[in-house]
Amino acid sequence: MAGTGEDQAPGGRTLAVIAQAAGVSVSTVSKVLHDRSDVAARTRAKVQRLLVQHGYPGRSGPAAGALAPGGLIDFVVNELDGEWAVELIRGAEEALDEVGMGLVVSAAHGSGRPARRWLDSLAARRTLGAVLVVPGLDQDAHRELRALGIPFALIAPVQEPPAGVPWVGATNWPGGLAATRHLVGLGHRRIAVIGGPPDRLASRARVDGYRSALEEAGLPYDPALVRYGDFTNGPAYRHALDLLRLPDPPTAVFAGSDQQALSTYRAAAALGLRVPADVSVVGFDDLPFAEWVTPRLTTVRTPLAEMSALAVGMVLRMLGGGQPPGTRVEVAGELVVRDSCAPPPAR
Amino acid sequence: MAGTGEDQAPGGRTLAVIAQAAGVSVSTVSKVLHDRSDVAARTRAKVQRLLVQHGYPGRSGPAAGALAPGGLIDFVVNELDGEWAVELIRGAEEALDEVGMGLVVSAAHGSGRPARRWLDSLAARRTLGAVLVVPGLDQDAHRELRALGIPFALIAPVQEPPAGVPWVGATNWPGGLAATRHLVGLGHRRIAVIGGPPDRLASRARVDGYRSALEEAGLPYDPALVRYGDFTNGPAYRHALDLLRLPDPPTAVFAGSDQQALSTYRAAAALGLRVPADVSVVGFDDLPFAEWVTPRLTTVRTPLAEMSALAVGMVLRMLGGGQPPGTRVEVAGELVVRDSCAPPPAR
Repeated sequence: MAGTGEDQAPGGRTLAVIAQAAGVSVSTVSKVLHDRSDVAARTRAKVQRLLVQHGYPGRSGPAAGALAPGGLIDFVVNELDGEWAVELIRGAEEALDEVGMGLVVSAAHGSGRPARRWLDSLAARRTLGAVLVVPGLDQDAHRELRALGIPFALIAPVQEPPAGVPWVGATNWPGGLAATRHLVGLGHRRIAVIGGPPDRLASRARVDGYRSALEEAGLPYDPALVRYGDFTNGPAYRHALDLLRLPDPPTAVFAGSDQQALSTYRAAAALGLRVPADVSVVGFDDLPFAEWVTPRLTTVRTPLAEMSALAVGMVLRMLGGGQPPGTRVEVAGELVVRDSCAPPPAR
Repeated sequence: MAGTGEDQAPGGRTLAVIAQAAGVSVSTVSKVLHDRSDVAARTRAKVQRLLVQHGYPGRSGPAAGALAPGGLIDFVVNELDGEWAVELIRGAEEALDEVGMGLVVSAAHGSGRPARRWLDSLAARRTLGAVLVVPGLDQDAHRELRALGIPFALIAPVQEPPAGVPWVGATNWPGGLAATRHLVGLGHRRIAVIGGPPDRLASRARVDGYRSALEEAGLPYDPALVRYGDFTNGPAYRHALDLLRLPDPPTAVFAGSDQQALSTYRAAAALGLRVPADVSVVGFDDLPFAEWVTPRLTTVRTPLAEMSALAVGMVLRMLGGGQPPGTRVEVAGELVVRDSCAPPPAR
């Protein structure tokens, strides 16, 4: 995340003025300037707006006019399904509300790319920029988006986007590492993983984090305990059933999403196994329902709202005539320990 | 839902033309015309657009121009939290996508009414109409919305809106009736209910449906088994604990939301009770997680996506120069039977 921003950074006095106007510390302004992740979405948006108003990162940019109230940012999500989508929308809406701009929400309806009609409609309405959460964006789609001439950023792309396209992702590898270390620390020796699609960067990074945690603990990597599906429920349920029926079954399952974790709960119940007494389960995402289910789910928090606020911030910064300080930002999650893990049962 | 629409209805030939263009039956077009609920959101939107194009309900309206691609409808939801919100957004987005229009999503951030800035921004951007899901809209807010001069519709208002304001709700009373009848049918005699806030129409209608089911079964109404909270988890968990610890506890709980049902699961687990062997639970809403949890939740489906598609349809119809056929539409849900209910345990 080494930025070009530092070369154009405002001086200390400007930072102090911005900090005062935003009601935050100079250190918080500095964090926003360097796109550090430990700043709340609303605070970040407010500081970013003030940075733009104070001419950072480029005084020649169209900042003031572009950010006038009533301006719109388009947000395209592949599917409007589940809490994952609403958390992303919430972060973007809050970031834009802070600067008096509106959020247009569209779905790609599973096509993996924005619809032709959506591309056409951007010109018809007063859209200033776009944030896209559409995993399968191909080269053609990138070309079309660039041809529109409006700044855009991606969230959680499947493959690394072409150079220069800014994107925000979650730190998947450390998440997989933390989840698996937690299970190892409880004494588990046979730990299974149910990943997402193997062609997705996020899945591979999580499984690699899992593998590293096993390695550092001196535990063998058993391919029979590694399953790939999608991030939804049907395949996860079948994988979990298969795993728990193995002659030498795992005592813990690291699921690639909270939905998959719930399917693992169901598979365990179907086989008469209790979570966590007989099998421990860790999820990924920390969607709101994770703390309502029984047992409450231990999971790796993916700061979805913060990710989309950051992506909006990148677009606002580009609208202000600057470049985002880094084109690739990964937001760190953390393991949220609840009630779904315990030491392995005595055999 | 007796409509004024029938007086201005297109003739049989027009219906056939519209049906052919939409790729549906004449009977489906007729259902849309009379705002019947058993039509998919996308189909409904497509048919509505064609009805407007064919001059229904008023040839003099500004239909063609108003519905040009690129037009925007604003959607304001009180809070962007959970699957409830995303289901509503999905229905509205699909209905608008069908007619080539965009959806601007804003949150009232818990204030219960649209922000002053939102009202101002409507004029700045090209907003043609609005749908609001903000429970506590007061007289002032209604006046301001009317002063804007753009058509709007409400979803699930807390209190009945002023005459002439179109709104879409769920049929809460029949939902409460169906949920309670299901439990009575399984042999339960002591059935508790955890409602939402007592000042909300939806809560009162559900509890009244519950009461009617008890009455028709000749069962007494015991106020000790009736609790009001909000629709979220904290209060529901405490209510469920209280209820299940009564000297003569209920053998079944009808929860006013799926979230409350999950809290009832947790309270049961905390007391060592199994769902459904020791206590049966019915939810309300049928959010996606209802079929992932263990046991899979029996619940009253609230067709949220369909409700918001209908509200969008009302606004589009008003944009087309007509009036919605009724200003008050209630969409029927249905009981979805899964695994969370069983006959009461032998005492």
